Amino acid sequence: MTHSPVPVNIADKLSQFSDLWSQKKIADVNDYEVKLAKLKGEFVWHTHEDTDELFLVISGRLTLQLRDGDVVLGPGELFVVPRGVEHCPVADEETAILLLEPTGTLNTGDAGGPRSKAPEAL
Amino acid sequence: MTHSPVPVNIADKLSQFSDLWSQKKIADVNDYEVKLAKLKGEFVWHTHEDTDELFLVISGRLTLQLRDGDVVLGPGELFVVPRGVEHCPVADEETAILLLEPTGTLNTGDAGGPRSKAPEAL
Repeated sequence: MTHSPVPVNIADKLSQFSDLWSQKKIADVNDYEVKLAKLKGEFVWHTHEDTDELFLVISGRLTLQLRDGDVVLGPGELFVVPRGVEHCPVADEETAILLLEPTGTLNTGDAGGPRSKAPEAL
Repeated sequence: MTHSPVPVNIADKLSQFSDLWSQKKIADVNDYEVKLAKLKGEFVWHTHEDTDELFLVISGRLTLQLRDGDVVLGPGELFVVPRGVEHCPVADEETAILLLEPTGTLNTGDAGGPRSKAPEAL
């Protein structure tokens, strides 16, 4: 087996970092990555032209601003931003999320800029 | 947009079915499906030769029996069974899980048999 036969505990992983807007990889599923992040404040408007992006809120409250309106997610709620749909995450309080998207997907999508950052392994 | 701009609430979705060992699709991410299932008892030993499979426990307790030993998952814990690794899920109490795998992945993998069942939409 190339994977460790030990479960990944999401709460444990979240306790291992505190930096905001920094994606931490916790698992691979084929050529997809499962990542955690802590958010507070507003990100940048961006689009992933080639992929959908799944957001699952673990704690806190995440607003996914879309040009058509906002989607507000609490703990245990998920939303898939379809490919090509411009979005901007914002969190008024510190919010922990789980993300799923293809390996190599850039956090800022087509927007690039100073907040672009590759995921880190936890 | 081809997706509804409404979040998916996992607890709400779980309240909408009670049948065991029946996967319910709650979201698509490109050519992957996010599914829920309720388990109790033992499934069948099987292998997915072509894909990894992610299990995330929502409630209860899931044991993933592997030929190398067991992996036991509680709420908020996930494990990815690598492709080609034979496994058999078992749950002593009723357990709710979230699954992620490519669209079209059969629940019984290579084993087939009477417990094979395609996912249903919720």
